[in-house]
Amino acid sequence: MTMRPADHRPEPGRFTRREFERRIERACRLMTRESLDGLLVTSETNVEYLSGFTTQFAWNTPTRPWYFLLRRNGRGVGVIPEIGLSNWLATSWAKDVLTWPSPRPENEGLDLLTKAIAGTRRRFGRLGVELGAESRLGMPAGDFLRLRRMIRPVRMVDGSSLMRELRLVKSKAEIARIRHICQLASDTFDALPGFLETGDTESDLVRKFQSDILLRGADKTPYTAIGSGKGGYTSIIAGPTQRRLRRGDVFLIDTGSRFGGYFCDFNRNYAIGKVGDRVRRVHDILFRATDAGLAAARPGNTAADVFAAQAKVLVDSGIELGNVGRFGHGLGKILTEPPSNKPGDDTMLEPGVVLTIEPNAMYGRGKILVHEEDVVITHEGAELLSRRAPREMVTIDA
Amino acid sequence: MTMRPADHRPEPGRFTRREFERRIERACRLMTRESLDGLLVTSETNVEYLSGFTTQFAWNTPTRPWYFLLRRNGRGVGVIPEIGLSNWLATSWAKDVLTWPSPRPENEGLDLLTKAIAGTRRRFGRLGVELGAESRLGMPAGDFLRLRRMIRPVRMVDGSSLMRELRLVKSKAEIARIRHICQLASDTFDALPGFLETGDTESDLVRKFQSDILLRGADKTPYTAIGSGKGGYTSIIAGPTQRRLRRGDVFLIDTGSRFGGYFCDFNRNYAIGKVGDRVRRVHDILFRATDAGLAAARPGNTAADVFAAQAKVLVDSGIELGNVGRFGHGLGKILTEPPSNKPGDDTMLEPGVVLTIEPNAMYGRGKILVHEEDVVITHEGAELLSRRAPREMVTIDA
Repeated sequence: MTMRPADHRPEPGRFTRREFERRIERACRLMTRESLDGLLVTSETNVEYLSGFTTQFAWNTPTRPWYFLLRRNGRGVGVIPEIGLSNWLATSWAKDVLTWPSPRPENEGLDLLTKAIAGTRRRFGRLGVELGAESRLGMPAGDFLRLRRMIRPVRMVDGSSLMRELRLVKSKAEIARIRHICQLASDTFDALPGFLETGDTESDLVRKFQSDILLRGADKTPYTAIGSGKGGYTSIIAGPTQRRLRRGDVFLIDTGSRFGGYFCDFNRNYAIGKVGDRVRRVHDILFRATDAGLAAARPGNTAADVFAAQAKVLVDSGIELGNVGRFGHGLGKILTEPPSNKPGDDTMLEPGVVLTIEPNAMYGRGKILVHEEDVVITHEGAELLSRRAPREMVTIDA
Repeated sequence: MTMRPADHRPEPGRFTRREFERRIERACRLMTRESLDGLLVTSETNVEYLSGFTTQFAWNTPTRPWYFLLRRNGRGVGVIPEIGLSNWLATSWAKDVLTWPSPRPENEGLDLLTKAIAGTRRRFGRLGVELGAESRLGMPAGDFLRLRRMIRPVRMVDGSSLMRELRLVKSKAEIARIRHICQLASDTFDALPGFLETGDTESDLVRKFQSDILLRGADKTPYTAIGSGKGGYTSIIAGPTQRRLRRGDVFLIDTGSRFGGYFCDFNRNYAIGKVGDRVRRVHDILFRATDAGLAAARPGNTAADVFAAQAKVLVDSGIELGNVGRFGHGLGKILTEPPSNKPGDDTMLEPGVVLTIEPNAMYGRGKILVHEEDVVITHEGAELLSRRAPREMVTIDA
């Protein structure tokens, strides 16, 4: 296990001022196309994406909401609790900030927000708000309903599809951050056989895994699932439990760890000692399905095509598709972002889109096996961000 | 730094079936009092609190919503994505589950949810939903508006104040979990001077801190703020930055770490080498303000009284109150829960309420100093859950 923090190397993927200028320019163009006077964002990812405000605090507690209003002329206003002012000014490009002494449940910034919206040039009378699929509001629903009334005649309409479009194609700096966290996770996965000890529970192993990736340079490790069992596991999103790992087990660890506000999301499978041929065969099929997914992940194909290529390998091998509902998804500021690699998702892939390739299959009695890699779409096709898993499942001596 | 995971001791605060029976009984009584036929919860904390469903996955991604409907007769229904079924059945007492193949953006469980609500005995025609202060919905706002129309004539009304009341008083098992994570954090704070190395940045120190507390037994460490500077810091909710810690610095680390779904939330201050008398004097005043807060945190007093007792020490010492907006708050499944220790919060303290006592003061040019302890209210008064900080600020030789 790495014992010292990473060297003091320059931070990968540093954002320049131009990074945000580009985001704002595109956002304004899309606002005009969608007939929006402004865009009000309230979720951690969208506030951070547009304003640059970075914080551990704000969304770890629902006590105080944090708002960012981007006007169609490119001007942005932060409407935030007083406690965050110095933090906001240190991290955001938007120096126009309204604050209130929070907590103040009877009026958590709604009057200031209404004022800021009223001060927005009205051409369309429409304000984009996070309403659509895969979005969450960073404010109480009651305040949302109240605000909807307070800003009349301005109407709230969906702004989340615009944000989705904006965030789909990643910049070089964003890709550098995702690549960095993918490499750190790859290193931790490689080191894992060295720190698994006899008698470790799932929980022990996850603690060591999380500790290791933090010391290598991850900022956070919000998600580390583990599944284990004799010859395989039954869930890819559960654990850790107090179950002890033992000879004959196959286990997965799947991590969503974060660097600079961007996630990796991939897993590895391990065998402890000798395991049966069946799980090795399924593993081999998933490996080949991943190859097919990697080959299909290229400009001009859709997310559905990436699904179909993987599914064909499973179907041709006579193996049942897993119950995950898709074979990979978008990745970035959130562990799972649009699109979904599944039938019907016609999102067109283009350079800069970051995807997971994640075939999964059922076998035995309720067992599931999953294999996952992270890639960025380039003009030449998929470029791996994670380090490709070895073709044979890693076996740990026990 | 601890290098091996914690021993395999029995898990502190194991929930018995009775734990959930009590919660459900109280919830049903409150539903009757509030004229609610049912309670629909969507947030991680409330779903987990009522159903027992534990997951790292569900709320780390907004792709799929997870619903729990508790009827006034005590029957609960999980309405969840298929991917989570085995996980749900392994952790929740509520075996009545409806699933759909998610992601399915055009209908993410809304039809099933409508069916489950329609199947609820209608006496009042009112459904409690998370609408109020400090709540967040775990579903897209657009789906919330749609569901509101779909369930007519059943009306959505606020259910978050009921949940607040339910969660305010903690059970013995809940308190045991909070005590456990507070003790782990106390151990890590004690160990910190041993793992700070010359040349460490804020970021290095936070990585080591997080790694240490995980290896000691924390499940997660979502929040670790750091502030540092010559003679003091200017924000208590920011960092970590690439600033190197050096002689003459005063720094704080504040952690919200989690065990068994419950948080600790407290900080410690450290001096590196010799620091001025002024910050030591403010530290001493905050220590005494904390004592006053501890003495006031007893049954029969309100959260406002706990504020007033602390504020009096600061005012009597002629020192400016900090810009945090309050001097402590509730603590439990979330890093900050109601009540707020501030003027006007008349929440009555009673045995089982868990609070932070958190006086903070301004000094110098824009500097702030904070001191925090976690307590549970008992019949005899406040019982410390964190290990009381030493009276003198800890000085690290450098």
